[in-house]
Amino acid sequence: MVKSGDRVVLYGEDGKKFIVKVEEGGKKGTHLGVVEFDSIIGKEYGDVVTIGKTQKSYYILPPTYIDDIFSMKRKTQIIYPKDSSYILLKLDIKPGTKVIDTGVGSGAMCAAMARLVGPTGKVYAYERREDFYNLAISNLTEWGLIDNVEIRLKDISMGFDHSNVDAILLDVPDPENYIHVCWEALAGGGRLGVICPTTNQVSMVLEKLYEYPFIDVEVWESLMRQYKPYPNRLRPVDRMVAHTTFLVFSRKVNKFIKKQEIESESYGDQENVQQIEQKE
Amino acid sequence: MVKSGDRVVLYGEDGKKFIVKVEEGGKKGTHLGVVEFDSIIGKEYGDVVTIGKTQKSYYILPPTYIDDIFSMKRKTQIIYPKDSSYILLKLDIKPGTKVIDTGVGSGAMCAAMARLVGPTGKVYAYERREDFYNLAISNLTEWGLIDNVEIRLKDISMGFDHSNVDAILLDVPDPENYIHVCWEALAGGGRLGVICPTTNQVSMVLEKLYEYPFIDVEVWESLMRQYKPYPNRLRPVDRMVAHTTFLVFSRKVNKFIKKQEIESESYGDQENVQQIEQKE
Amino acid sequence: MVKSGDRVVLYGEDGKKFIVKVEEGGKKGTHLGVVEFDSIIGKEYGDVVTIGKTQKSYYILPPTYIDDIFSMKRKTQIIYPKDSSYILLKLDIKPGTKVIDTGVGSGAMCAAMARLVGPTGKVYAYERREDFYNLAISNLTEWGLIDNVEIRLKDISMGFDHSNVDAILLDVPDPENYIHVCWEALAGGGRLGVICPTTNQVSMVLEKLYEYPFIDVEVWESLMRQYKPYPNRLRPVDRMVAHTTFLVFSRKVNKFIKKQEIESESYGDQENVQQIEQKE
Amino acid sequence: MVKSGDRVVLYGEDGKKFIVKVEEGGKKGTHLGVVEFDSIIGKEYGDVVTIGKTQKSYYILPPTYIDDIFSMKRKTQIIYPKDSSYILLKLDIKPGTKVIDTGVGSGAMCAAMARLVGPTGKVYAYERREDFYNLAISNLTEWGLIDNVEIRLKDISMGFDHSNVDAILLDVPDPENYIHVCWEALAGGGRLGVICPTTNQVSMVLEKLYEYPFIDVEVWESLMRQYKPYPNRLRPVDRMVAHTTFLVFSRKVNKFIKKQEIESESYGDQENVQQIEQKE
Repeated sequence: MVKSGDRVVLYGEDGKKFIVKVEEGGKKGTHLGVVEFDSIIGKEYGDVVTIGKTQKSYYILPPTYIDDIFSMKRKTQIIYPKDSSYILLKLDIKPGTKVIDTGVGSGAMCAAMARLVGPTGKVYAYERREDFYNLAISNLTEWGLIDNVEIRLKDISMGFDHSNVDAILLDVPDPENYIHVCWEALAGGGRLGVICPTTNQVSMVLEKLYEYPFIDVEVWESLMRQYKPYPNRLRPVDRMVAHTTFLVFSRKVNKFIKKQEIESESYGDQENVQQIEQKE
Repeated sequence: MVKSGDRVVLYGEDGKKFIVKVEEGGKKGTHLGVVEFDSIIGKEYGDVVTIGKTQKSYYILPPTYIDDIFSMKRKTQIIYPKDSSYILLKLDIKPGTKVIDTGVGSGAMCAAMARLVGPTGKVYAYERREDFYNLAISNLTEWGLIDNVEIRLKDISMGFDHSNVDAILLDVPDPENYIHVCWEALAGGGRLGVICPTTNQVSMVLEKLYEYPFIDVEVWESLMRQYKPYPNRLRPVDRMVAHTTFLVFSRKVNKFIKKQEIESESYGDQENVQQIEQKE
Repeated sequence: MVKSGDRVVLYGEDGKKFIVKVEEGGKKGTHLGVVEFDSIIGKEYGDVVTIGKTQKSYYILPPTYIDDIFSMKRKTQIIYPKDSSYILLKLDIKPGTKVIDTGVGSGAMCAAMARLVGPTGKVYAYERREDFYNLAISNLTEWGLIDNVEIRLKDISMGFDHSNVDAILLDVPDPENYIHVCWEALAGGGRLGVICPTTNQVSMVLEKLYEYPFIDVEVWESLMRQYKPYPNRLRPVDRMVAHTTFLVFSRKVNKFIKKQEIESESYGDQENVQQIEQKE
Repeated sequence: MVKSGDRVVLYGEDGKKFIVKVEEGGKKGTHLGVVEFDSIIGKEYGDVVTIGKTQKSYYILPPTYIDDIFSMKRKTQIIYPKDSSYILLKLDIKPGTKVIDTGVGSGAMCAAMARLVGPTGKVYAYERREDFYNLAISNLTEWGLIDNVEIRLKDISMGFDHSNVDAILLDVPDPENYIHVCWEALAGGGRLGVICPTTNQVSMVLEKLYEYPFIDVEVWESLMRQYKPYPNRLRPVDRMVAHTTFLVFSRKVNKFIKKQEIESESYGDQENVQQIEQKE
């Protein structure tokens, strides 16, 4: 049941949607008419609210993470669901995980991780620009996730204040300059994910990764194709997002067995589906 | 520090890896030689263990979810990380979520959800084949996730025993026949994800979805490209997984405002990045 | 050297381009100023023409096929270069080929084939709408290709007037209804290409193909990714064409050895790179 | 009708195919049995030939270019149809075109162009390795295309012997070192295509292209998805070729209007479908 103070998605009969915080006596003007919040409070999720004047209607839905980030205030490019979902799995974020997120930007990826780590984990978030820092705090507070985050306004070139963390997501303009501070902050076996929009950055990050004891280096790119959901005329949509970023993943070890021969023909060419020998 | 009873990844100097449960006095024969578990217990993650005879070495790593599923015993095709990661985000699985998973198969996707829902949530898992049911229990137990799962050996054609759940993942050979029981089990605003390997199944599922009060219907396909991680010869790998499944997502509402005109030219052609109006 | 009557590409210093037919005394108003054709005639291709008033300049280039189709008058969706190029190769169009093109639409694909068949081959073009028919004649005439084409204003439901052709491109709204007339018009071993924008059409066309003696059935989709050509910030463009059409190819045989078991697990799963046994 | 001396495709009832040159009295042992060529000579294309002993049959088909290259003798990686088809269109190869191909390798791409240029055009082929040179001559001769090719055993670092050509395909291990000799050999407005398997090579080639008067620089990558041709279980094949090469295209002009600002935000981000203003 929707209560005063809840954030809800209004999903219009025309397919347009937005998020409102419903408070007693409040209202929101929309392109379909004015929505009185008192007509929402007390309804069940999945119910319909109809606007008196126009007789146009909205469905009332609970917001998901994807709803949240596409309606959030932002000053930066956000990491898309196609990428954030894969990062969450590769960095193995779950209840109890301790993870560093830097730079925070508008806080979308920080929120994705804060949702999952729960009260026994923590997101240590570093941002050096004060406007982004304040915006991220505001967004995380609105989403009710700020308690799972410890956020600092700080330049990381001198290193992180935290160490022995399970994972780090590095999303800065010059990631190749922070590989060593990531190695220092990670626990042994910890996971590093790096956001690299260009191929040149990928090459620079790879070079740095091979200088430090990082293993299991992988470079991925996610392409999501959406289809027009017509049963009798099923086909991909006409245009799609072609590129957001490359994703570089790796794991810290405490020292190298021996320096890797990174250009060996076989390296990196193994299929991920066969990397681990299946149990008999 | 690795303790007796821990499951650890042994990552060989040749890049091959597997998972062992290290118990005092135990050992494991590998292609690099015999690994004595006593030489692992007490080490830190990220450390190296060297085999006396051959002087070959392994890194010791904590297993991630992806490590687990690629080394698990399985009798069924598993859902790949490229798909499972996107499903987790679209179904908004997080601590506290109550979600139905059916069919369970070998338990890989069930585990992915069980990791995240924590003690306040629950995965209700339904499987009708006894051999899969037993295997899933065995795998979930080994991973320490069985407490987060309530698993039943049951055919779902008569419906689920649970209702008012936040989300359902439907992964059965004939998903079009279970759309109505999913609608009944979901809470209002609840999320449904359907696994459809063929375009024909997508069409059949879409037809059924439009018969019941489901909105926000989306069809996606995930393509992950991996790159050879050579800084000076960066390029995609030569061959890739071209297709595993299409993913159909939707949300339950309690009743239709009006039956959707599913073949309208504009429907489904909106870009997901603009689905929600950004806050000013 | 550019002569009066030649068609040339004007490629602006801002990257915008268009095609003009330069005739003595003529001129063309552009967003960079008025281009006098007499200042172009007598120049070499690759030279620069500067507009007196604004001192803005254009490069003079000979038009390619791709230049032509993106500047042509059109009333229909054209087949994109990513698709037309693959069709030309799969249908094995070359000097001397006799090929049927239907429907002609604005004539873009007809032109692609007419360029290649030369005086010893021929494109037999069928179009049932008079406005398209007239537009195609106008475009083919402007491009100097009309002599290689025999074009008819005709509905093909009663069959083609030509037979024993080497190849057919079938691009109509209901291709499944014309598979039999294509079989009749093709020479033994002749190639058929079918344009199918939706998966449903692909299924319908496949069903029909298996009813007639067609073999070597393949379904393809072409995805072209373009990259931003910055040497130091190389990356794919942000958005791309996600889908235009599926392409179904097949070859006519005179009779079936035996009806194909089209749903056998192995069928169609062979990789095209290994279909033909390499010579020792 | 098949005549003695013709090259034909034998397409087995099991889907396996190969090419034979049928000569009177000849025969070929296959996995389905021995094919006597006298039983093929005199048949029509599309007919069936049955092997006496096993009663297994082959279809008789005329070879296409794709049949030829997948059955040819080769010592080098060939350019795949997905790439060669796009190159042919972007380089605007057609009857009458004069084009340089280097290095020739086994001759597959040389053949693709030689098929199209006809007696009024010419492929000038340069290869510096004698074994490849001899193999290419042998292959081009077998395909009946050698008259359209002028092939030289020569290192191109000192430049080409031909100039004023319409197009060049540059397929060598270090293409960045030959951009200037390509510029010299091309006619004004001529098209250059460069094969670059790695992103690093693309960057190096782009840097060189911007030093010389080349415009209209584009970088492309072709991804072809094949589908299993089952009408009732339509889906992409499980695995695909993920990468062969990037393709860099450009056009020579005689001098720069002004040096391009290659890193401007807008450059290269225009969509190819809108590059040329459509006629009103």
